[in-house]
Amino acid sequence: MMSPEEVCSRVLERITPSPGERERVLALAKSIMDKLRAILAEEGIDAQVRLEGSLAKDTWLSGEADVDIFVRFKPEVKPSFLKEDFMEMARRATEGLKQIERYAEHPYLECWADGIRVNVVPCYDVRKGDWLSATDRTPFHTEYVKEHLPEELKADVRLLKKFMKGIGAYGAELKVGGFSGYLCELLIIFYGGFLKALRGALRWRKGVVIDLEGHYEGREDEAREFFRHHLIVVDPVDPGRNVAAPVRLDKMCLFMVAAKEFLTRPSEAFFFPRKEPLDLRALEANLKSRGTSLIAICVRTEGLVPDVLWGLLYRTLRGLKGSLGRQGFKVLRTGAWSNEEDKAVLLLELETSRLPPVEKRIGPPVWVEEHVERFLRKNMADPALVCGPYIEGDRWVILIRRKWPDASEFLKENLLRGGGRHIGVAPLLAQKVQEGFEVLTDMEVLKLCRGEEGFRGFLSEFLIGRPGWLVGRSG
Amino acid sequence: MMSPEEVCSRVLERITPSPGERERVLALAKSIMDKLRAILAEEGIDAQVRLEGSLAKDTWLSGEADVDIFVRFKPEVKPSFLKEDFMEMARRATEGLKQIERYAEHPYLECWADGIRVNVVPCYDVRKGDWLSATDRTPFHTEYVKEHLPEELKADVRLLKKFMKGIGAYGAELKVGGFSGYLCELLIIFYGGFLKALRGALRWRKGVVIDLEGHYEGREDEAREFFRHHLIVVDPVDPGRNVAAPVRLDKMCLFMVAAKEFLTRPSEAFFFPRKEPLDLRALEANLKSRGTSLIAICVRTEGLVPDVLWGLLYRTLRGLKGSLGRQGFKVLRTGAWSNEEDKAVLLLELETSRLPPVEKRIGPPVWVEEHVERFLRKNMADPALVCGPYIEGDRWVILIRRKWPDASEFLKENLLRGGGRHIGVAPLLAQKVQEGFEVLTDMEVLKLCRGEEGFRGFLSEFLIGRPGWLVGRSG
Repeated sequence: MMSPEEVCSRVLERITPSPGERERVLALAKSIMDKLRAILAEEGIDAQVRLEGSLAKDTWLSGEADVDIFVRFKPEVKPSFLKEDFMEMARRATEGLKQIERYAEHPYLECWADGIRVNVVPCYDVRKGDWLSATDRTPFHTEYVKEHLPEELKADVRLLKKFMKGIGAYGAELKVGGFSGYLCELLIIFYGGFLKALRGALRWRKGVVIDLEGHYEGREDEAREFFRHHLIVVDPVDPGRNVAAPVRLDKMCLFMVAAKEFLTRPSEAFFFPRKEPLDLRALEANLKSRGTSLIAICVRTEGLVPDVLWGLLYRTLRGLKGSLGRQGFKVLRTGAWSNEEDKAVLLLELETSRLPPVEKRIGPPVWVEEHVERFLRKNMADPALVCGPYIEGDRWVILIRRKWPDASEFLKENLLRGGGRHIGVAPLLAQKVQEGFEVLTDMEVLKLCRGEEGFRGFLSEFLIGRPGWLVGRSG
Repeated sequence: MMSPEEVCSRVLERITPSPGERERVLALAKSIMDKLRAILAEEGIDAQVRLEGSLAKDTWLSGEADVDIFVRFKPEVKPSFLKEDFMEMARRATEGLKQIERYAEHPYLECWADGIRVNVVPCYDVRKGDWLSATDRTPFHTEYVKEHLPEELKADVRLLKKFMKGIGAYGAELKVGGFSGYLCELLIIFYGGFLKALRGALRWRKGVVIDLEGHYEGREDEAREFFRHHLIVVDPVDPGRNVAAPVRLDKMCLFMVAAKEFLTRPSEAFFFPRKEPLDLRALEANLKSRGTSLIAICVRTEGLVPDVLWGLLYRTLRGLKGSLGRQGFKVLRTGAWSNEEDKAVLLLELETSRLPPVEKRIGPPVWVEEHVERFLRKNMADPALVCGPYIEGDRWVILIRRKWPDASEFLKENLLRGGGRHIGVAPLLAQKVQEGFEVLTDMEVLKLCRGEEGFRGFLSEFLIGRPGWLVGRSG
């Protein structure tokens, strides 16, 4: 077995950009920044063009460069200017590249040059704390990291980012709910290295506070009270912001167990997981012998940006799980897949999608007279009544035939009514459901793998469940 | 619809003993008491022979006379004397009658003469409060009722007793867990009549205190704290005793709802329920279309006196319900039947006796390292593992094949091991189970009706569930 250090140096060989790659990416950045500066000067606009993000901080991973170019405007500039005039200029500066207009709080421009993503993003030049838009903090983050991350720890940031990517915990976007690049940088600065950060994470508990600038020194309980989150990393440039706010509890825990596992059984698999989806035959065999019930709901999702889409998908899964649970179905697991263009699939795994035909319904306590009368009147006349009403403890009870013994029937029928808002489909997604949906069960779900490589990978991971880096224990 | 009063006077016509019946029963009592007195005199023993119970208080029901003859000994008399010499004398005094030796705290003799039960019971002549045995209170109870129950309320006691019998709430024995005759008498004295008692019961709530002699006047909370029971009727002759202690919550509630129902829709059905068990064909049809699963466990129970037997049966049902529940089975209802001689049947109705093959098992939180290691080691090597381990929230979770997807398999296999003590069979009953048992499911349960009229009645009531006097409500 290799030592953790050995594994790290091997990994670094693969993820550190070569001088050539670095030069190429920086040249690309410079050429676009130069064009932008020229255009701004031409238009007589006083704005600063800056390189931000991992490229500026030199913490990017080989082969995964993102060129983040920020244009910092004076606070007087109107939002409408950023929406229209700025976008026009950004397009001119990146003429010839593939351009996609994206939206966060403001629109920004995403371009692609030789497989390298270039983001041209507007922000305001404000004093620390006087934020006018969400992107205004970015230059301060860049400054902070440049100032506090020593040269020799840049490799450690790369390791931590790649580790997070490998275990599926990298990224603050809603889809992942994990660790942003900036958060990785802060953890390395705080703990002083990659392995130290892993060891540090083993001591994390719910409500841990990491506070580099001591904004809450001696008042950690206040920070916990204020942020109310399981992982709190106070933003050094903004005491009111938890950099770890997007980190979901399961992703925090995933990182912790992966850290523990890596320190015990070091391997490159954490950084470079083998992602070989099961082939169709293996998927079919798994489903046939599995013994649970799968239900997939397919919707078309044109026009929803990823962070909105994933929010809707996750919220809907929680809602449907609740509704199915109230009908007596045990939802074992849920998952969502989307190509982030036009298709999404909600996947639910149930202990069984067919419940026994009869259920027990606990009525009101005998002392609550009006409720008792209503319960008796309603149920004694119900042809679905199987047994009772009788008394158990201090309550009236009946056995009655279930209205919905079949989960996919329940879903189909209720999704047809208003897109399923009343059974937990998030309103914006319910609109899409109303335009059409499909419910597939068990083996039918395999149909979705045809022509959708991405779905097959998702389904494979969903069915296996176990992280690739988790090594079996013997005896 | 008749008024409640009309119904009551009709019922009274049927339950009040005629002068002829009264004479016959009292003559029987007198003849045995005379013989007993003669024998005691012959043996030179100083003891009082007294008529007790409902005959002495003139609150018995026509056709259901119980002759309770108590022999009150001086406190110096040894328990061994009561066990042997007294029983010998009681047998001599009732020579020629069918005799059965019964046990409460002491043995006593039960005899049968022309369908009338005669109990010859020993007790000690002590001062109020200095009880040496449980039966010592009886003469005081008789005195209290004779003194406080006016002649004109004796009919009301008969009505209340018959009402309780009709709804299945009469009797302090464990099998019933209901209202004793003495408790009915106290309720009539307290409320001043049958209909007044029913109306009074409508106001009962958990922890109601009825305290005829004001032992806890102004300190009802103390009584509640002391007795810790849902229905408290302080014994007028013993402030430390709750006459309603044997009344189970469901029987208290049953009486309350029956009272409410009778006052709203008076009918003789409350007093004289039609008990026509379903015939075999109807039972079969019910079971076939029912949609639930029935499981019956049959045991031989020779040598267990009823109050012990029923205690064991109920305790075992609670235990088995718990064990099945922990395996994931939903036990809808339970019931027990016994001929109180040599056979007992434990009946369980389950939503289904076949569970889906896979269950979700929630493991330890990721922060509890030793538990995590044990969980991973144990389950990752288990061939029953279906999915995971994966992380949900802050816990490790797996999907795994159930060990016991079939409830009757679970019961059969586990009853074979030590009679099922470890799955909740009460130890004394487990001994019987070890000598042999049978597990029947669904239609097989009908076999038990053959040759056992009583079981068919029990099964009919169990399957219907609804009390016969509960009238359907329309719209």
